[in-house]
Amino acid sequence: MRFLFLALAILAATEAHRVYDHPSLPRQRNLKVADEEKTTEFWMNKAQHILAHKLQNLNELNTRKAKNVILFMGDGMSVHTITAVRNFMGDSSKQVSFEKFPYTGLSRTYAVDKRTPDSANTATAYLNGVKGNYGTIGVNAQVREGDCFKGNDTSTHTESIAKWAQDAGKWAGLVTTARVTHASPAGVYAHTAFREWEYDAAVTYDGCSPDINVDIARQLVEWPVGKELRVVLGGGRQNFRDQSVNDEEGSPGYRSDKRDLIREWLDTKAKENKTAHYVWSKKGLEMLDLDKSEYLLGLFSPSHCPYHGELERKHLQDADPSLSTMTEAAIKMLSKSENGYFLFVEGALIDMAHHESQAHMALEDTAEFARAVELARNMTSEEDTLIVVTSDHSHTMTINGYPNRDANIFKLAPEMADDGLPYNVLSYANGPGYANTFSSTEGRRNLALDNYMDPEYRFMATTPMEYETHGADDVGVFASGPYAHYFTGNYEQSNIPALMAHIADIGPFADDKL
Amino acid sequence: MRFLFLALAILAATEAHRVYDHPSLPRQRNLKVADEEKTTEFWMNKAQHILAHKLQNLNELNTRKAKNVILFMGDGMSVHTITAVRNFMGDSSKQVSFEKFPYTGLSRTYAVDKRTPDSANTATAYLNGVKGNYGTIGVNAQVREGDCFKGNDTSTHTESIAKWAQDAGKWAGLVTTARVTHASPAGVYAHTAFREWEYDAAVTYDGCSPDINVDIARQLVEWPVGKELRVVLGGGRQNFRDQSVNDEEGSPGYRSDKRDLIREWLDTKAKENKTAHYVWSKKGLEMLDLDKSEYLLGLFSPSHCPYHGELERKHLQDADPSLSTMTEAAIKMLSKSENGYFLFVEGALIDMAHHESQAHMALEDTAEFARAVELARNMTSEEDTLIVVTSDHSHTMTINGYPNRDANIFKLAPEMADDGLPYNVLSYANGPGYANTFSSTEGRRNLALDNYMDPEYRFMATTPMEYETHGADDVGVFASGPYAHYFTGNYEQSNIPALMAHIADIGPFADDKL
Repeated sequence: MRFLFLALAILAATEAHRVYDHPSLPRQRNLKVADEEKTTEFWMNKAQHILAHKLQNLNELNTRKAKNVILFMGDGMSVHTITAVRNFMGDSSKQVSFEKFPYTGLSRTYAVDKRTPDSANTATAYLNGVKGNYGTIGVNAQVREGDCFKGNDTSTHTESIAKWAQDAGKWAGLVTTARVTHASPAGVYAHTAFREWEYDAAVTYDGCSPDINVDIARQLVEWPVGKELRVVLGGGRQNFRDQSVNDEEGSPGYRSDKRDLIREWLDTKAKENKTAHYVWSKKGLEMLDLDKSEYLLGLFSPSHCPYHGELERKHLQDADPSLSTMTEAAIKMLSKSENGYFLFVEGALIDMAHHESQAHMALEDTAEFARAVELARNMTSEEDTLIVVTSDHSHTMTINGYPNRDANIFKLAPEMADDGLPYNVLSYANGPGYANTFSSTEGRRNLALDNYMDPEYRFMATTPMEYETHGADDVGVFASGPYAHYFTGNYEQSNIPALMAHIADIGPFADDKL
Repeated sequence: MRFLFLALAILAATEAHRVYDHPSLPRQRNLKVADEEKTTEFWMNKAQHILAHKLQNLNELNTRKAKNVILFMGDGMSVHTITAVRNFMGDSSKQVSFEKFPYTGLSRTYAVDKRTPDSANTATAYLNGVKGNYGTIGVNAQVREGDCFKGNDTSTHTESIAKWAQDAGKWAGLVTTARVTHASPAGVYAHTAFREWEYDAAVTYDGCSPDINVDIARQLVEWPVGKELRVVLGGGRQNFRDQSVNDEEGSPGYRSDKRDLIREWLDTKAKENKTAHYVWSKKGLEMLDLDKSEYLLGLFSPSHCPYHGELERKHLQDADPSLSTMTEAAIKMLSKSENGYFLFVEGALIDMAHHESQAHMALEDTAEFARAVELARNMTSEEDTLIVVTSDHSHTMTINGYPNRDANIFKLAPEMADDGLPYNVLSYANGPGYANTFSSTEGRRNLALDNYMDPEYRFMATTPMEYETHGADDVGVFASGPYAHYFTGNYEQSNIPALMAHIADIGPFADDKL
């Protein structure tokens, strides 16, 4: 009896702490993991390697001034997204291009009014050096989202690093897979109380006057910074043309002022005796002799560009340029500037796929973004070109469960949940994926019945939302080139343009201004 | 008619893109945000400030060798957790202590067999420089979790940085809020195929022999590295005493070999003419003259130490030391070493609270962890003491929705979900909080009825799991002191001890070994 009691006590004790501390997993099967990883030497050699690298590279700082600055911004590219894209690319140990950059930092993304920001106020932060309110671009926080009057008060307008570059005689340009009038690229050149005011009719819709609250497309074509951009590549033709006009691919414009801003842009340049080119297809871009162009406007879609995965699956590669293709063209154009340049490149669709709970497409676009960064680093020199890679804000996707090293990241976790049903390794805190997660009649759905390998599959979400929200956690910063070491540490997102400007010796942070 | 059609077209167009891109939020009310944040100057001055700091500090590297190294490890302290603790501490803009460290990095945490790791294999990585399999400690990946035989093969055993420090004549010690035999601290001194083998009966339970597979408590007391630790502070008395014996506070031991390892530890030290002290309460620790002690063992709880929030709410502060109090005692002890020291400090309960979906308690423990780091930095000199702060792995908690800047992080998001019900700003991908999220009869529960401000409240989860799983995303690294600049970049978690050892000139990465 005493023995039995003791044995039970041991069992109870053992069980109690076992369950508490450490989820019991199915013991591992044979995995496709390289045998070398099972040795101590493999990891010690890997450490020797990184140490040798640090000894060689980090003990001498690159303290040249930057002739060129390229800011790469993966919209909504959270820390979780970057880790997941490593897994998506085949192995948790395989770094994406910019993870190999020598310096990393963490940027705090909050808006003045919101803990979780949007792509508008964050563009003001990482391009203008000032934090604003949710929904506003290129204005300080005296302007509330949608305030027609205050948004027009130029004392609230901030200056972008593109302006500082232009003032210093450098060229400036932008590339995005969104509409070129969308929140992030608008941070390069626009000032508005509301990001939605991309064309005149949207201003009218909100009860403001498009004559006073100039829409973003007009600002790009008419206002000093936008007008002087040497390269503008992305989507968004609809915001430049009237509703009565169909564009090159048959889509109607969104404007209601009868204007054709693309025509006006070309006419203005012609009047000023500048060689300017407008292209609307990949073929048009390829046929162009960039050496002969002084200004380049490429609008490849009526609205946003297609997802990178769609480019491949829908065989659009011949019609639409990828982010890498656009980045390559932009660098070729800007490299003609004797005084150097500032280029902003946005991987915009990472964010949009996350909003749709479409993790697969978000990762495809992240992978393409990483390729564009690699191409840019290879086309430029670390001696004179600073490349900073970051994100505007996070998303709510997490990698959960305990997937095996060789498991596809889109598959189900190897263990079952407590209700005996499987769950996805990737999931969201909220979003349209809720419809796949729960049904009002059955409760939690059996995901094993789903085609979760479909690239358009919507991953699980806790809370039903038509569009998944952003996350509020810090995002990574990765830097390479002159003074890249300034980008380590944890800092305000709004410090990024100040650091870049100082390193390029331009704007209010130039040497002679300090 | 034509006008109506046009108006509708404008409306449709405007609506279409509005919904797609940008969640429409309730327009902001008056927030308690400082007026200064609404000016451009505030942000420009903030940037000037950080720039001045970088100019002053980062252009000269601290290239002294480190006499002392302190590794702080917040168990399960994800990037999301650190951002959330800033909000919890009152403001999104307020950095916690270690976020002010000049250099930050990102560490890849995967195990050899699992994309999402546990606290065992990660301890091997960040303390021994080698990646192993899930559930194993201080052994390479030739050992599978629970393999009695291979785990005993000393050729698979790895060496910890504590051993390298001891071999170089430095002192070594550990502090944790977990049992001192738990996975993370065991990485300092133990080698085992299974983290649960903390005491002999657990080994027997798994069908192995405790004579051959020596339990972790015995390894701490008998094996060379553990035996020579100068300070061991934490919980876990139960693993050192027999089931037939009640400890100082009336809790029975877990061992079944009749041994009292605490007594044996004291006896051994006495035989070796060393002054050793054992304490089991905060009072005992305070009464001790640390100047007169050569070895200190403090076991303040039968199992893990209480959550920091419990210390305060249950008025345990007089009985149990906080992580800060233990850290202070450890640094005082180790500072007596002429040749310097290595100290490992774990904030263990961040992880445990997350596993319970208890975000509030996780953040309370993160805040206390940050205070312990601050205290350590203040007690030591940046000239000779390297402090590295990191985490072993992530968790699945995210900050979602668009809370106002002045909103309490534990409250509901200001907007409603698509089903008209509210949702929490904090939530988990899986965990016991599922029970609060869904009910089999009602579906998604109305959280407005819950007492979500209760510190023990379990936050929402998508998937029902008794214990929430870890997350697989990279964790942050924050460094201050000699060669802190080596800790920027994105690297394997297993590189951390190599970098620390090189900087302290000890072990296989000492100058004369390279």
